[in-house]
Amino acid sequence: MAELKDLTKRAENYSQWYNDLVVKADLAEQSAVRGCMVIKPYGYAIWEKMQQQLDKMFKATGAQNAYFPLLIPKSFLSREAEHVEGFAKECAVVTHYRLKTNDTHDGVVVDPEAKLEEELIVRPTSETIIWNTYKNWIQSWRDLPLMCNQWCNVMRWEMRTRPFLRTSEFLWQEGHTAHATREEAEQEAQQMLKVYADFAENYMAVPVVQGVKSETERFAGALDTYTIEAMMQDGKALQSGTSHFLGQNFAKAFDVKFLNKENKEEYVWATSWGVSTRLIGALIMTHSDDNGLVLPPALAPIQVVIVPIAGKPEQKQKVDEAIIPVISKLQSDGYSVKYDDADNKRPGFKFADYELKGVPVRLVIGARDLENGTIEVMRRDTLEKETRPIEGIAEYVETLLADIQKNMLVKAKAWRDAKIHECDNYEEFKEKIKEGGFFLCHWDGTAETEAKIKEETQATIRCVPFGYEQTPGTDMVSGKPSKARVIIARSY
Amino acid sequence: MAELKDLTKRAENYSQWYNDLVVKADLAEQSAVRGCMVIKPYGYAIWEKMQQQLDKMFKATGAQNAYFPLLIPKSFLSREAEHVEGFAKECAVVTHYRLKTNDTHDGVVVDPEAKLEEELIVRPTSETIIWNTYKNWIQSWRDLPLMCNQWCNVMRWEMRTRPFLRTSEFLWQEGHTAHATREEAEQEAQQMLKVYADFAENYMAVPVVQGVKSETERFAGALDTYTIEAMMQDGKALQSGTSHFLGQNFAKAFDVKFLNKENKEEYVWATSWGVSTRLIGALIMTHSDDNGLVLPPALAPIQVVIVPIAGKPEQKQKVDEAIIPVISKLQSDGYSVKYDDADNKRPGFKFADYELKGVPVRLVIGARDLENGTIEVMRRDTLEKETRPIEGIAEYVETLLADIQKNMLVKAKAWRDAKIHECDNYEEFKEKIKEGGFFLCHWDGTAETEAKIKEETQATIRCVPFGYEQTPGTDMVSGKPSKARVIIARSY
Repeated sequence: MAELKDLTKRAENYSQWYNDLVVKADLAEQSAVRGCMVIKPYGYAIWEKMQQQLDKMFKATGAQNAYFPLLIPKSFLSREAEHVEGFAKECAVVTHYRLKTNDTHDGVVVDPEAKLEEELIVRPTSETIIWNTYKNWIQSWRDLPLMCNQWCNVMRWEMRTRPFLRTSEFLWQEGHTAHATREEAEQEAQQMLKVYADFAENYMAVPVVQGVKSETERFAGALDTYTIEAMMQDGKALQSGTSHFLGQNFAKAFDVKFLNKENKEEYVWATSWGVSTRLIGALIMTHSDDNGLVLPPALAPIQVVIVPIAGKPEQKQKVDEAIIPVISKLQSDGYSVKYDDADNKRPGFKFADYELKGVPVRLVIGARDLENGTIEVMRRDTLEKETRPIEGIAEYVETLLADIQKNMLVKAKAWRDAKIHECDNYEEFKEKIKEGGFFLCHWDGTAETEAKIKEETQATIRCVPFGYEQTPGTDMVSGKPSKARVIIARSY
Repeated sequence: MAELKDLTKRAENYSQWYNDLVVKADLAEQSAVRGCMVIKPYGYAIWEKMQQQLDKMFKATGAQNAYFPLLIPKSFLSREAEHVEGFAKECAVVTHYRLKTNDTHDGVVVDPEAKLEEELIVRPTSETIIWNTYKNWIQSWRDLPLMCNQWCNVMRWEMRTRPFLRTSEFLWQEGHTAHATREEAEQEAQQMLKVYADFAENYMAVPVVQGVKSETERFAGALDTYTIEAMMQDGKALQSGTSHFLGQNFAKAFDVKFLNKENKEEYVWATSWGVSTRLIGALIMTHSDDNGLVLPPALAPIQVVIVPIAGKPEQKQKVDEAIIPVISKLQSDGYSVKYDDADNKRPGFKFADYELKGVPVRLVIGARDLENGTIEVMRRDTLEKETRPIEGIAEYVETLLADIQKNMLVKAKAWRDAKIHECDNYEEFKEKIKEGGFFLCHWDGTAETEAKIKEETQATIRCVPFGYEQTPGTDMVSGKPSKARVIIARSY
């Protein structure tokens, strides 16, 4: 109960609420290393569920997992001119390979004799080392497409960090594909964006806008960056996954050519795509409330918790007898159930704790329920309680879980859609953006206008959205003609 | 066929055979970074199968997964006196956090202004950072036992590397547990050794000797190191997994205390345990032959390959009709099947390739088989071929896979047991050790004798084996009294 009382309310301070919740729900905490977090077992269990599902979806598209080195030779980063600008700057640099005991024999110092000839960079992303490898794997059109994914850690030396949203080290997956034609590579990049959107909506219950980034916001080295953008409860955008069409940039930088069916040499076409532990941040900030996490059943480490209320041992035994078949049924149907009959914590403490942890369904059964053949059911998303017959309760809970999953997406979508507005007046925009939300505005396509908006409002162009009927118009800032509306928002 | 012909024979050069096989079977290759390998999709698929099974087994013991930072502050390594000696020496050191464009604007250099106040070490193992974290997680006996595991990459700057067996970066899991009593921690360390031995024997089909290391060979910072030792086909030992009882060393170094049930403060008791991608090396070197890999069905990425031999399209269609129900049956029973009907490779090439890749069962079906209602079955472990009725073939293959799994362990065990000898004469030992094998010898328990054996024979004490009836005797080197026989062998 203590934890719950201390949780900051969203309305008071949304940012503090988030930070509090990450710690109090046992998801993650700061480590002794600046900007790096420890992902605690409960937070990691969510990541494992995400990984399992995504991994299946990637493999269904033909991707295979592999593993490439953590450290990248410094010179590799400079091979692709734009890439180096984006990634070589803030990164961890390995310069030595040995420590030695210090003169006072109470510690260790870097051994100056063990200096590397060429410094190594802890990967901020792996295009360079992977394309250097692909050079040896690709000779002919028969070797294409080549589609590898790796689950790994990466490092970007961030100045301001927040758990899951922006940390110096984070976990992610990065897919790197090679294709014989431009069209096929573009299709792959778009297909993977759809996989991410499918995952966000159908597993995370997080509605996303799919679109393409402006040149300014593109991945360093990409010709096109596709993105899924989610809206957090404070109306800010969270870029939740990106898929890049890299053209032949990396193939040219690493000299990766293939013999096509006409026996002519061509450079290979590339994509890369990634999502990270940032998705956990998106999950938290989309659904959770002042009582704690609200997790969608598809990704909840514990889907159903059962708390018995039994004073005397005879009662407990009867409760066990009634509930064990329910647990067995749920587990054999593939659901994750926790029966919390620990007697060193009071039911009230347990209730608050599982609410804080976002367990989708809670069942409570006591002596009176036994007499009546009933059980109390609470759903976390709405906090609604009802009393149901214990007969058939497993089936009821299974239906309820499906309903919660569906309801969470519907609710998040309705909430988000109410905060998406068309806007054609810059003064009005400057007022409204303070309240958050996504703004569909005409843009003249210039970096100047984009920079002006960012400077004056801290908002950025999130993407040119797909699936939105576009008509030409007038840029709200410059008054110049615009081909399409873009989504502008403040973001994480 | 080309690949197979080029594979060195084991009898010619066992070491070269291994290196060749790793590359030719598409398991791994050297990367551009010294001592670091790229794990290719086929090799990684074996690692994924290992991970899935081990992860289940760990969770069944109550361990949970978590993630701790890659980088460790240099000073942490010096906190535990023995640990620093073992691990602080050869490791990758991060000294800077930024690069900048060089003066000639054609590359990047380390920015001297971005020097870290305290250097960070790429984790060689994570006891220090984890125990620094556990300090905040453990206050009372109620917080114990705490059992976390992490799947991650680690780095040790090795001078001489070999794929899977010894690489500068490798993938592993490291379990770190905290307990209220010495007994419980010792039991945990022993239990995890049993889990590793169970996995090695029942999934990898690799028989192992379980035992405890001598003080010299112990993990740096441990009171006891338990080990599983496998014998490779050249008679050398491969340490395949270790589990350490760490006493209170790390608890004291990081000041991790708890209030016991009597409300008194005590230091926590610790274990750690790990296996790595080295297991893939053990798998290869235990079973494979001059034709390539031999993989146990439990860990084979492809368990059954089906090659149709059909000249004309009508034949191909009939073959498809006959074989698709077999594939469906196998897949729905959870088996991994590949139907290789690619028409740009000849059957002979495919046969050699799947033999090289160690696929346990190969089915071949052609026009004549169709007429006779038969199919050809080959088992990779013995290379035996037989013709079977196609009726009931799926069930037959399932039984065969189980038989192959069993047979591989029996064969490996028989082979190994024939190379385990008692030896009481040092001169005889010096001769025999040249042929490889495990030698059960009396040892006086001194580091001097151990060092002498190592220097004169390159063999080391692998462990004091469990489950071997021990009687006192005389050390074969020093002539001093010995309490027990140890296993001495050359090793990887």
